Amino acid sequence: MKKYTTISDLTNIPETIQEAIQLKKNPFLHKDLGINKTLIMLFFNASLRTRLSTEKAAKNLGMDVMILNVTDAWNLEFTEGTVMNLDSSEHVKEAAQVISQYADIIALRAFPSLKSKEKDNSEWILNSFLKHATVPVVNMESATMHPLQALADAITIEELKRKQKPKVVLSWAPHPKALPQAVANSFVEMMQQLDVDLSITHPKGYELNSEITKKTPVYHDQKAALENADFVYAKNWSSYESYGEVLLQDSNWMLTKDKVKNTKFMHCLPVRRNVVVEDAVLDSENSVVIQQAENRVYSAQVVLKKILEKL
Amino acid sequence: MKKYTTISDLTNIPETIQEAIQLKKNPFLHKDLGINKTLIMLFFNASLRTRLSTEKAAKNLGMDVMILNVTDAWNLEFTEGTVMNLDSSEHVKEAAQVISQYADIIALRAFPSLKSKEKDNSEWILNSFLKHATVPVVNMESATMHPLQALADAITIEELKRKQKPKVVLSWAPHPKALPQAVANSFVEMMQQLDVDLSITHPKGYELNSEITKKTPVYHDQKAALENADFVYAKNWSSYESYGEVLLQDSNWMLTKDKVKNTKFMHCLPVRRNVVVEDAVLDSENSVVIQQAENRVYSAQVVLKKILEKL
Amino acid sequence: MKKYTTISDLTNIPETIQEAIQLKKNPFLHKDLGINKTLIMLFFNASLRTRLSTEKAAKNLGMDVMILNVTDAWNLEFTEGTVMNLDSSEHVKEAAQVISQYADIIALRAFPSLKSKEKDNSEWILNSFLKHATVPVVNMESATMHPLQALADAITIEELKRKQKPKVVLSWAPHPKALPQAVANSFVEMMQQLDVDLSITHPKGYELNSEITKKTPVYHDQKAALENADFVYAKNWSSYESYGEVLLQDSNWMLTKDKVKNTKFMHCLPVRRNVVVEDAVLDSENSVVIQQAENRVYSAQVVLKKILEKL
Repeated sequence: MKKYTTISDLTNIPETIQEAIQLKKNPFLHKDLGINKTLIMLFFNASLRTRLSTEKAAKNLGMDVMILNVTDAWNLEFTEGTVMNLDSSEHVKEAAQVISQYADIIALRAFPSLKSKEKDNSEWILNSFLKHATVPVVNMESATMHPLQALADAITIEELKRKQKPKVVLSWAPHPKALPQAVANSFVEMMQQLDVDLSITHPKGYELNSEITKKTPVYHDQKAALENADFVYAKNWSSYESYGEVLLQDSNWMLTKDKVKNTKFMHCLPVRRNVVVEDAVLDSENSVVIQQAENRVYSAQVVLKKILEKL
Repeated sequence: MKKYTTISDLTNIPETIQEAIQLKKNPFLHKDLGINKTLIMLFFNASLRTRLSTEKAAKNLGMDVMILNVTDAWNLEFTEGTVMNLDSSEHVKEAAQVISQYADIIALRAFPSLKSKEKDNSEWILNSFLKHATVPVVNMESATMHPLQALADAITIEELKRKQKPKVVLSWAPHPKALPQAVANSFVEMMQQLDVDLSITHPKGYELNSEITKKTPVYHDQKAALENADFVYAKNWSSYESYGEVLLQDSNWMLTKDKVKNTKFMHCLPVRRNVVVEDAVLDSENSVVIQQAENRVYSAQVVLKKILEKL
Repeated sequence: MKKYTTISDLTNIPETIQEAIQLKKNPFLHKDLGINKTLIMLFFNASLRTRLSTEKAAKNLGMDVMILNVTDAWNLEFTEGTVMNLDSSEHVKEAAQVISQYADIIALRAFPSLKSKEKDNSEWILNSFLKHATVPVVNMESATMHPLQALADAITIEELKRKQKPKVVLSWAPHPKALPQAVANSFVEMMQQLDVDLSITHPKGYELNSEITKKTPVYHDQKAALENADFVYAKNWSSYESYGEVLLQDSNWMLTKDKVKNTKFMHCLPVRRNVVVEDAVLDSENSVVIQQAENRVYSAQVVLKKILEKL
């Protein structure tokens, strides 16, 4: 694999999922693979799970890891041709080329503005690094995608499914702040590739990018949508149509025990308890959020392994 | 050992001290013990010595170390049942369980509020992690305890004592800011377990928690208390009775050469020169503060070693 | 080598450059040298290249690396005899001694105030660490010097020169903010030691410290100065005479394609595009700034190697 910035970089998803499950059984088996190889993790935004699980994955493979909170250094410039006499001290052209010389793989987290749909859809930070970096790039959540999370989610469903083609529902949930669509987008794209019965439920006005949802059925009646679901994936996102807006915070859309019943409950975390989902769900045996988080290690590890094998 | 959050987790203190002194002679002897084991260090508060000495200790044992300044990520929620629609993005229930999946041992620094005695005595952060983490927890200074420091202090006294039962005096000292009682508490608890003649001296109003001091004698005449002492441990703490208050900053309580004389001078550092203690003491041969700091490595290393041996 | 805080610590510069070029061909050859050795990197100021390249260099040599942003901990006191009842929590006397016990080598970045020439020339932070640390110290850019950068620059010129004694011109360039003279100082000092034809060009008022420039010729006509140059090193610095001031931001001093022509273009980065130098130069084949940044690894690695060999 030459990079992992979008789900379509995976050539064989079912095989990748099986390989991740094997890595989980024996995480240190390939520790020679990363010897003398360095992963540089660049954060433009805060992180807990992604930071720790990706670092762990790299070290499981024997890699050295160097971490830089880019904002601790200085502002990068992304526009071509700018006269840089304001706040930006370095252009991504230099930064990406320079960092490539210290790294064998660069992993990058850069959230959207949620102010300009066009700018966010252009994936200006991720694509600038892709353009100028001379080593493989891994997406640790960009403006519109979170493919490492989606792979961890797919691993979790594979581990837990009890029928060949489980019913999987992505449900919007309330949240006080405007959040990206990235997790929802990548989850939908991943599920569309797998043998699952996928549907989406959200209030009107919260339609995701139709180029991503394509023919996936969408329901506005959450309760009906959840009937007989094997997995429900709860997630808030801000409006794509009224870009970046919080249209409502209706607690009726909170995932509650009476709605979730015996469905496996998924969330990428961090999750706001009793806003997105009530305690009774998260604290029940049906919650698999901790297992999802555990699988973030093996999602990252299988990706890094496939990249290392092609270096 | 299953955890090290309080001194009472040590089953055999003299043996532990001797083992630490042996580790100091040959720090890398057990480098195989930590292979493929990860220490995650979580900081809710700033650190210099604790951060570097604990990381060094873990690496001496061959462990991988991952460090997270929790405040760089987001606020954690510690209260049960809260509707999390305000500043906290993640509940400690999830955070502790998730981090446990990336770590073999979690080390934690979380200072007190110094506003609510009840809250601080509940050790809400430390105990929340203890409750929800599924791997051993090490206390890198909590609201009311600093057991790694106390163990380093005990190692230092063992190395330097010239008589079987040395006279050890804990002396309050002035400081411009309100500081925790944690170091003083753990020092007292540790000394009570050892064969030393322990006493405490402080101005009225600075009584420590009587459940900790128990029958340890307390004197309000600092000069008299220091007579013929083998070791004086200087430390400021804010009032426990008038909780968190700075009652006085009387420079008469500063440790000076005429009071310290040939007594070994101890302090956990950082120390404010010419406020807590005058230059003439710190710069004399009687100051053992640097040796104490050195022993922080072996205090942490013996604890991590004992935990690794039981994993 | 006992330390590397100034270029004069290098006893044989041409031999050191050749050794760095050899390391670049086989970076991991000496990985046993740093086993069980720890580099502690202390940052008083932001860093991208220096942070990553020095960490990479240390790991190439098998060292453990611990990184501390000092400002994340607390303010250090540098003045002798102070009553520390204000903002500083710890004196450098303790900090440097303590950190020395956790490190085999300490690397330090501490920029100038640009307010007091006397204070900056005293190198109060660097020299305080040199005085109190008990392990070798490496300068990762101090108030007046950046010797690791200068060594990387010398390596780059050695790799690229096409004649025995190339013409090298250090040219001042405009910048919106007041910057240190450190890079310019160390570059001049380094070039003075090598077989190059060195000259400096800058507007009047931007004279560097004459104790550093010595007899190096200085021209105020940039265009004339650049004629037939083999290498031009662009760099902004604030006035040394009118200490720390930005006297002019004249864009006529920007390095442009018509001035640079076929001269190899050097800059330490970060560089403000179209302020210091125009895109047409940086994006041309004559720009060697990325190679310079790459050589930061081998500059640091040869220095760490020489220090490790004498530990």
